Order: sequence, then structure tokens, then C-alpha cells
Amino acid sequence: MVLVNGVINAGTAENSLSLDIVAEKLSSIPSPFIDNLDILKYNDFTGIEAFRVTLAEFLTTHANSSSPLDPNKLVVMNGLTSMVCALATVLSDVGDAWLIPTPYYSAIRADVSKIPQVNLVYAHLPAASVSECQPFQLNVDILETSLAKAKTQGYNVRCLFLINPHNPLGDVYSKELVLQCLQFAKRNNLHVIMDEIYMLSIFQDDVKFTSVFSLDTLPDPQRTHVIWGFSKDFSMSGMRCGAVYTWNDRVLIALKQISPFFGMPTFSQCYLNEMIKDKDWVEKTYLPTNLQRLRKAHKNMSDGLTKIGVPHLVRPSGLFIWADFSKYITPSTFDGEMELFYEILDNKVYVAPGQDFFCCQPGWFRIIFSIDEDKQEVSLKRLSVVLKKRMSSLNSE
Amino acid sequence: MVLVNGVINAGTAENSLSLDIVAEKLSSIPSPFIDNLDILKYNDFTGIEAFRVTLAEFLTTHANSSSPLDPNKLVVMNGLTSMVCALATVLSDVGDAWLIPTPYYSAIRADVSKIPQVNLVYAHLPAASVSECQPFQLNVDILETSLAKAKTQGYNVRCLFLINPHNPLGDVYSKELVLQCLQFAKRNNLHVIMDEIYMLSIFQDDVKFTSVFSLDTLPDPQRTHVIWGFSKDFSMSGMRCGAVYTWNDRVLIALKQISPFFGMPTFSQCYLNEMIKDKDWVEKTYLPTNLQRLRKAHKNMSDGLTKIGVPHLVRPSGLFIWADFSKYITPSTFDGEMELFYEILDNKVYVAPGQDFFCCQPGWFRIIFSIDEDKQEVSLKRLSVVLKKRMSSLNSE
Repeated sequence: MVLVNGVINAGTAENSLSLDIVAEKLSSIPSPFIDNLDILKYNDFTGIEAFRVTLAEFLTTHANSSSPLDPNKLVVMNGLTSMVCALATVLSDVGDAWLIPTPYYSAIRADVSKIPQVNLVYAHLPAASVSECQPFQLNVDILETSLAKAKTQGYNVRCLFLINPHNPLGDVYSKELVLQCLQFAKRNNLHVIMDEIYMLSIFQDDVKFTSVFSLDTLPDPQRTHVIWGFSKDFSMSGMRCGAVYTWNDRVLIALKQISPFFGMPTFSQCYLNEMIKDKDWVEKTYLPTNLQRLRKAHKNMSDGLTKIGVPHLVRPSGLFIWADFSKYITPSTFDGEMELFYEILDNKVYVAPGQDFFCCQPGWFRIIFSIDEDKQEVSLKRLSVVLKKRMSSLNSE
Repeated sequence: MVLVNGVINAGTAENSLSLDIVAEKLSSIPSPFIDNLDILKYNDFTGIEAFRVTLAEFLTTHANSSSPLDPNKLVVMNGLTSMVCALATVLSDVGDAWLIPTPYYSAIRADVSKIPQVNLVYAHLPAASVSECQPFQLNVDILETSLAKAKTQGYNVRCLFLINPHNPLGDVYSKELVLQCLQFAKRNNLHVIMDEIYMLSIFQDDVKFTSVFSLDTLPDPQRTHVIWGFSKDFSMSGMRCGAVYTWNDRVLIALKQISPFFGMPTFSQCYLNEMIKDKDWVEKTYLPTNLQRLRKAHKNMSDGLTKIGVPHLVRPSGLFIWADFSKYITPSTFDGEMELFYEILDNKVYVAPGQDFFCCQPGWFRIIFSIDEDKQEVSLKRLSVVLKKRMSSLNSE
């Protein structure tokens, strides 16, 4: 086993398992300037046409779209962060609010608030206990109640933000649930942003993913917008590339107006274009290998957590496991959660505490499993040391 | 001569003369993943450290900096557009104003207004006539008068925006003028943004450029910020890469806070880093060749304009010539300028009318000379046809 002396990062949602395959592919692509010197000076802030065409085709295939996606409805931007900021700028006024179920990938909060000054209001999903069938299960009743509450608090709620497959839960929503959420939004005149950035990181074979693109009819297409990016599904957070798809021409025009601020190099677009144009590589090499590696790493981490006594959700997607450390925290408070967080960090493992995801019940942590097996093993050992010490001191109290 | 059937773009400030040298260099750089797979997932939104270190050293040398620049005071962003937007967000509140001399590169207006909602107020430089020694000459009296006027109109002016070397004039400010402007700003509690994006496109040998970096002491360093990018000086508008340098820690922290929205791929940063790390290539190959080509193309276009009867400024920098077509427009109005613009466009040449740069006197156009010689020649012929027709109809009136 490799010696790991520093802090192991099992807290940042990155996929370290398939970097070799992607790097090999990108390294094999010839310089884009050989064919066309103008690539150097050319920019189309909504994404160069060739790339949008390829990307539309790619998403049509992999999201199982009910009809071919239109490249002209895609706006390429420098990452999900920028897309959320841009959508908040376009869909809302300063002080407006968006509804989002908790726990959620909390960078969304910074993305909507820092520049567009949009608030998030929460639909808190109850943790229940892991022994029940569906802890943190999203349902429309909770959305309705939370929306009504936000309205009485004076919020002008403009949009519902959903993440499917879900970060940090790893849930994949059923077709029924997706439709119910879209109908809820329509009923309440809300825009819906569906963040499908983990679309291709569903590693359990028998799970059916329902992309918004795959629906035959959308309840309210003019208020429905989908975002996807390369960061998670292609292990390249450093590449800063994603795309918004919208059926609403006015939103599209507005996004195009501000897209110069969120542009990415034509150079990099050329590489990504060549990468996904190679369907054989995507479908026969990268995706199956990556999913197999995710599946194995997930099982490893899940088994390891069970072994050291950490209950957790076993879900079919994402790069993380949502784990319940509450029995190691007495009394069960968010301060206690932070104490445990720092104790684990002192033992050189970084895992993200549930309060970072605005989880309504203390004691939960998000643990990234898409790290090397060596690092997994060391993390689990270090966690085990902390938890054993905790248990013995709790028992002796 | 190559046949040119379409519209010739002599309106967009791109340098097409040295694409071959840059493309060859970038194509020769090995894939960054060979050394480091983590490049794929790694991002530092202020720019990866290695790149900031190289860039600081590069700017120290080429801006003739009085002391070594600090890589930690640099924030790398996806282009000048984003840097201006970010600075407007950080330095101003909604509704505030920035002072800028006209004519100016008018995209600045969109950059400060679209998202940050900052206004521009103008210091209109008088055209005078080309026969006088310094038409459109910037001076501090005009800045003082314009600032006072803006204040009486109720504007809260926060910042002076200067472009040196200047777009569209091609002026290079003297050291005295740079200092006077900085002192004016200090006197009036204004921030100064110095846009030095054409720093390395000064093609006349005997001209001394005074970068803000080169000054021994700055009148008000806490309110002085410099921006530079690769788009113009390295012929790569498509690469979307520039950097802000600020001496103000609070501004730096604020820029870092919003830098995730303006990030560029680590991948592309690696290529640019390798490119400018090769000092031999920069100093002995690229820069001298590019400047020699710019010098030649500028002379060609300038001589051609003289030949077809278009007075113009002969300036030592940039990619453009600021030319006076007013004698072909009767009466001299901005509507007349637009009529001439469309007449030229109908004859398949795109040159940018002065009103696009908020020039206060009608009849001026910005003509890009950094295009292939064939295209220059065809443009001049087509322009000549339009102007001859105009002259004969004016004479027959």
C-alpha cells in the first residue's frame, strides 16, 4: 500500500478513478490549429457551432432524448458555477428566491447569491432513519408546504432547483417524481432548473434515469431548463465546461447576451468536441470502464463503512456516500457535528459535514468514494480510530 | 492575388498576421497530462500558481516593471470582458459611474453595464483636424471638466478607465500624461483601471511605453489596477485569457470571491504557461516577428489610405488606424456616417464607424490593418470605389 501522510481529501466531489483514460484520449487529439489557424482568434461565446452540434447529439443519445436536441438551444459556458449564476441573473431580480430541497450541493447558494443576489429557500427533507425505506425522499407535498411558507415569509419565489442524480444523496428520481415536480412548478408558475451533471455517473445497472430530455411532453417547456457539464461525468472539474439547454427563446437570448462573461476557450472546446465525437471511445471504452470503476469503489467504501459501524445510504449514482455518524455525536447538535468534523480532520481525513449541505438533521457527512483504493483504505482506518475512541468515551460516560 | 469574394472584416480588432507562429508554438507543447493527471480535475479559480508565477515574471520583464510583480496579486480570468465586469462588480455599486475618455473601445460599456449595472460618463476628446498636431489628445483638464459635469448630473463617479496603448486611437501615453492621470484620480478619490492589453503591440521602435508597472511610485496604489490579456498581443482572442493585477488586498479578496464565475480551464493555462515560459521564443521569435509584421502592415494600410484620399492618424501601436472620412459625408452627421458605413459594407468591406466608439465628431472610422496583404489591397480598392463615387456625386451637387 502507498503511504499516505497528508490529509486525504474524501470531501471534494471529484472522480479520480478514470483520469488515466480521459488524459490518454485528450493527449491523442491532434492540435486543433493544424486544420485551422483561425481557431486562435475565433470565439463564439455561446460555444462554437461544431461543438454545440456534437454536444446536442451526445446529449440526445445519452439522456435518451425523446427527440433530437437543437444545438441552437444550447449555450456552452465555463462550468456549472457560471451557468447557475447566469440563469439566476436572467430568471430573477435581485432579492427574488429559488426553492431547493435540502440537503443540496451548497455551492449553488454562492452561485445565485454572490452576483445575482438571489436567495435560496429550503424544502427540508426529513432524515428519518436509515432503516426506513426512503430517508431524505423528495416529494411534492414538501415542496408545496415549503413554497407556501416561503411566500408567507414574503419571498418572491421564481424557480425550483433540482439535482438529478442527486448530490449529495446519490438518489436517482423516478419518472413519476420528475413529472410531479415539473407539474408542481407549472401549477405555481415557477421555472425549473434541472441539474443533471451526474447523468452519466449512475453505476448501478438496473437503475433507470429519467432525464428531462427523455420526457415525451414537458408540462411547461418555456419554464424548463437543463444543465449538464463535463466536470463530474468525465472527471474534469479543471476543464470548466458545461452547457445550458433551454426551450425558451427569450431566456436563450438573455443568456447569449451575458455569455461573453462566461466564455471558454475555443481551443478547449475543440478538444472536448473531438473527445465526444469519438462515439466508440465514449460508449465502448470510457463510460463502461468508468462506471465499472465507480461501482467497485462504491461497494468498497460502502462495505468499509459498514465494517467500521457507519450506517449510510446505498444509492446508485454520484461520487459520494451520504453517511450517518449521529450515534457518535452526543448530544446530537450541529456544533457536535463540527466537533466530529474537526476530530476526523485532525486524523487526516477530510469529509464534508451535512451542515455544509444545509441538511436539517445533524450527524450526516458526505464521503467521496471515487478516490484510489489505497486512499479509501487509509481513510477508513483513520475514521475507525476516531469512531472507536468516540464510542469508548461515550460508553464510559 | 487571392480572390476575396465575401465581406472583408477590417472591423474586428484581431491580429491575423502572426497566427502561424503562435499555432506552431502551441502545437509543439506536449499534453499537460503526461506529467500530471490531476490537471484534469484541478482548478484554482484565480489561476494555477505555476501560471501566475510565470505571468508575473513575464509582465515584470515586458512592462519594464520597477520591481518584481507579485504572482499573488494577479487574478487570471477568461478574458478582458470578464475582468472589466468583475472589477465593476467589485469597485462599484449599481448605478455608480466610471469616467472614460472618448472615443473608446465600446465593449467596455457592455462589460460594466450588463451585469454590474454601472454607467459610463464621458470625457469627450475633441477631434480637431488631422493637420493639427494632436487630435483626440487626452489631457487632465478635459478629465476635470467632465468629472465636474458628471457630478452635477448626479453621477457617483468611482473610477477612471484608461486604455494605454489606446484603442481605437493607437496613441501611446507619455509618462507625464500617465502620472498626471493617476494624480487626477487620486485628487478625486477615483479608482483607476489601466487597460494595457496592447502593451506588446507597439510596432514603432522609437516609442517609449510607460506601463503603470514601470512607475517608481504610484500616486495611489490602493486605487490602481492594471489589466492585460493574451488576445491582442498574442493574436488569440479565442483563448479567453487575461489577468488583473491589483495592489489592494480587499479588491483582491473580492475578485477571488467572484473568480469562479470567470474561470478558465487549467488545461489552457498549462499551454499558455509553457508558451511564455519559453523566453527565447517570446523575445527572439514571436515578438520581433509580430512587431515587424505589424509595422509593415500598418505602413501598407496607411500609404494605401493616403493614396485613396483618406486622412488618418499615424500612430505607433495597436491593430487599427483611426481614419477621417468626414469630407465624404455631407452634411457631417452621425446619420451620414452610418450611411457611409452601409455603403462601404455593401461594397464588401466592414470597417467600424466612430459612433460605435462614442466619438463626439462624425466621420471617423476604425480600420484594422492586421489582416493579410491581399485583403488589405482588396479593401482599399473597394473603399476607393465608394469614395470616388461619393466625390463625384458631391462635386456634381
